[in-house]
Amino acid sequence: MASLKPRTSHLKQGNHLYPVIMAGGSGTRFWPLSRQLFPKQLLRIMGDETLIQQTMRRVVSASTPDRVMISTNPAQAESIRVQLSEWKDALTNNFVLEPEGRNTAPAIALVALELVRRDPDAIMMVVPADHIVKGQRDFDAAVSLASNLAGEGLLVTFGVQPIRPETGYGYIKPNRKTVLAKQGKLKGYPVARFVEKPNAVKAAQYLKAGDYYWNSGMFVWRAATILDEIRRHQSVLFRGVEKIGRLIEQHASQSMIDEEYRLLPAVSIDTGVMEKSTKSAVVPVAFRWSDVGSWGSLDEVASKDKAGNVVVGRVVDIDSRRSIFYGDRRVVATIGLTDMVVVDTPDATLVCPKSRAQDVKKMVEVLKHQGAPEHLEHLTVHRPWGSYTVLEEGPGYKVKRVTVKPAGRLSLQMHHKRSEHWVVIAGAARVTRGNEVFDLQVGQSTGIPVGSPHRLENPGNETLHIIEVQNGPYLGEDDIVRFQDDYGRGVKREASFAKRISFRSRTRHVSCLLLALHASRDTLHE
Amino acid sequence: MASLKPRTSHLKQGNHLYPVIMAGGSGTRFWPLSRQLFPKQLLRIMGDETLIQQTMRRVVSASTPDRVMISTNPAQAESIRVQLSEWKDALTNNFVLEPEGRNTAPAIALVALELVRRDPDAIMMVVPADHIVKGQRDFDAAVSLASNLAGEGLLVTFGVQPIRPETGYGYIKPNRKTVLAKQGKLKGYPVARFVEKPNAVKAAQYLKAGDYYWNSGMFVWRAATILDEIRRHQSVLFRGVEKIGRLIEQHASQSMIDEEYRLLPAVSIDTGVMEKSTKSAVVPVAFRWSDVGSWGSLDEVASKDKAGNVVVGRVVDIDSRRSIFYGDRRVVATIGLTDMVVVDTPDATLVCPKSRAQDVKKMVEVLKHQGAPEHLEHLTVHRPWGSYTVLEEGPGYKVKRVTVKPAGRLSLQMHHKRSEHWVVIAGAARVTRGNEVFDLQVGQSTGIPVGSPHRLENPGNETLHIIEVQNGPYLGEDDIVRFQDDYGRGVKREASFAKRISFRSRTRHVSCLLLALHASRDTLHE
Repeated sequence: MASLKPRTSHLKQGNHLYPVIMAGGSGTRFWPLSRQLFPKQLLRIMGDETLIQQTMRRVVSASTPDRVMISTNPAQAESIRVQLSEWKDALTNNFVLEPEGRNTAPAIALVALELVRRDPDAIMMVVPADHIVKGQRDFDAAVSLASNLAGEGLLVTFGVQPIRPETGYGYIKPNRKTVLAKQGKLKGYPVARFVEKPNAVKAAQYLKAGDYYWNSGMFVWRAATILDEIRRHQSVLFRGVEKIGRLIEQHASQSMIDEEYRLLPAVSIDTGVMEKSTKSAVVPVAFRWSDVGSWGSLDEVASKDKAGNVVVGRVVDIDSRRSIFYGDRRVVATIGLTDMVVVDTPDATLVCPKSRAQDVKKMVEVLKHQGAPEHLEHLTVHRPWGSYTVLEEGPGYKVKRVTVKPAGRLSLQMHHKRSEHWVVIAGAARVTRGNEVFDLQVGQSTGIPVGSPHRLENPGNETLHIIEVQNGPYLGEDDIVRFQDDYGRGVKREASFAKRISFRSRTRHVSCLLLALHASRDTLHE
Repeated sequence: MASLKPRTSHLKQGNHLYPVIMAGGSGTRFWPLSRQLFPKQLLRIMGDETLIQQTMRRVVSASTPDRVMISTNPAQAESIRVQLSEWKDALTNNFVLEPEGRNTAPAIALVALELVRRDPDAIMMVVPADHIVKGQRDFDAAVSLASNLAGEGLLVTFGVQPIRPETGYGYIKPNRKTVLAKQGKLKGYPVARFVEKPNAVKAAQYLKAGDYYWNSGMFVWRAATILDEIRRHQSVLFRGVEKIGRLIEQHASQSMIDEEYRLLPAVSIDTGVMEKSTKSAVVPVAFRWSDVGSWGSLDEVASKDKAGNVVVGRVVDIDSRRSIFYGDRRVVATIGLTDMVVVDTPDATLVCPKSRAQDVKKMVEVLKHQGAPEHLEHLTVHRPWGSYTVLEEGPGYKVKRVTVKPAGRLSLQMHHKRSEHWVVIAGAARVTRGNEVFDLQVGQSTGIPVGSPHRLENPGNETLHIIEVQNGPYLGEDDIVRFQDDYGRGVKREASFAKRISFRSRTRHVSCLLLALHASRDTLHE
């Protein structure tokens, strides 16, 4: 295959380029900073933005925001929408939710299916949401060349130049005899072979040989090509995905689609397709990259103090070296540590040598097995209207600090099992309780009895902060009946009756027809 | 000097035996579990009781509770009274407060002065509040023999058989040529010499020689003898103490006494008197002893798991060895640690190798220098009526969980700068607010406006728990005006006017003359 002309073909393919951010990963390896429901991509690991925000900014450079597809799951979608709110409108219809984690191939197939529907010539650029890339220009150049190759029907991956004998990554060896395309210094080659994570000896050999590249887990291909290759190498998966496509066209219920998805074989796109396909190509890239796969890997990308420590938060150290210290508001006091990891969060602390950082995953398994909530969620939970932080939980009570953004409001809701007390500590609150509406200022409070419909709203320009004290025999987030929600959560599909409710407030009288929706308990909590 | 007859003289001296618990130590070496205002003696280090409770139980065995004197400072007195509430009545008048830490000699002189006033033949048994002793019978035997020697005018100390070449303790060499007294296997000798903390080589020599004993810091002597010896060897101190004695007799103001105390030379009883006196004697003892002087010293006395770890609290460990893990309600996750110390408290975490445990003191100095509150106090603070825990503090607000013991009540008080909201989460509350009195059950709440006199009380049989939300520009504990207090705190001396206040409650009408005391801000917070 001859080298393609760069400029024109880049622009031509660029018109069909759809970045796909894979954001369904779980949060085991950066525990306790990450959680199952708050994985690594949502963390501010380096710089002012979270990994998924950095990823979004990186990919729109070669595309437009409305072309970016987000592949994730229902549990994470909300947090991701909050973090990507800068591109909120563009992304509205671009979330593809897997009902259940079935590895990468089914998730990619589902997005490919949607993309060929939108644009038969769609070129997908698949990138994980939680990697770090340094060098936007080099990244754009690699995307440009890869897009050209993808347009020719190839499955293109990026090969990163190894800088040490890493045993945690897979490797790719290009077939240098054939140059598929060339653009500046960048070249594309057919893949000679993929190598699974090697042992230390092999990794050292690869580093020395200079002809092996780290498999970055980023891919560029035509949506139609990857579907073809999935049909060829994963026929069961393909038929399942085809069936899901038909169900979507027929406007089948979500539960039917979900059920079908759960039957798909859980296979990775690497081993299931790339390694089997004759169309695999690799572009050795110039940008720096890390999958930030563990606390130890922060060494690659984070800045350090003179003693080689990575220090974040309220850490007071005496004499430590080459260690990673992550604190928050609490004091973390460290003395004389070498090559250690100490991570302190409001509800969990991790201490381990860097050399054992991979075993954090094992620790999360242990916690999960014990039923410890700390593997699942943080004490602070983000919501479209703001956030809440559990300050303390005990028998029969829970204390939260709740923040509501300007103009934000929680759903009109009701609880069967708990009463709530709200004290405003900053900003101003508008409270709906039964058929009253009234405002509360700092230092004012109100109580919401069990079974009373209510809503908390921020009518002002500054963030509202309240302390909420809950009382009751059951305080789970799922004790919520939603009547109306600004963010389309949990009420839409179950509308069954309408009701006239009269609002009264100090400043206005409102009588309006309100869709009082028959909202049953759902998994999307307030 | 001939050996004394044990039985009769023990009983005779026993009648004059006054245990003196030295409880004025600061909490630097067990930080973050100990704090300046919550030192080691108040901690449950081993067993179900705190060190001072264990110490109290140990010394009353050879005496009676009303003979026990507590030497401490105003900041700690309240917590100690709470912990020793089992002996509350007996101890009422037995607290001797140093206005300021001036080392051990002034504190001991002050107690000696009080004891000769109460009983000219008083024998003092001085014991630190925060040591661990194993073997009550051996302890009692040592006290018995030492009391006899003290009755003869000697300054007696206990020598502990070394079990390793410890460099953290002082040593005592007895003059074995002279047996001062004998009782069973126990003997008393004159002191040949005192040795300051030795280096490792010397410590090893002492251990091998077998004729050096650890200086336990416990002493037995007649109060009159120690005052004599202080006059002889510390004349400035003696004159100062004499002056204080006269001031007390003259019912001088506390501030005058305090001022005089602050002028006393800060000298230790060991170097200032014991090492200079010709009357020093030592009884080599059979009981096991530790001064639990650092986290590392827990190894001597705490029980361990199979891998040699001391584990307390919610610790989840994978593969650690010979380490000390202290957690609380939060998860502490440790992987692959060896000879490490990890201590996690609600507001601070410490991580250091055992070999650096002595530097915890240095860390506390750093925190103090930084003005970090974590060196001073815990988030949970104990009070005579119960306790409070700061759940969160932020600009303009503070959230506390307050517990009140059955029949306990806070002072009738008022705040100039803050309003408060109370929500009952367990038990029942009786609230006084202005001239109302009303009860609140679980899930009920009330608000206390700025400037409104109020009181929180537990009328029931179970512990009352409330969540308190404070709002205001200043939220310091010292914004408190006390009108009446059951625990005699902060209102007594400043009574200036009386006022009639009418109480009203659901169950009773009370109209009584209440001493509404003109209580200004004081250092004893609610």
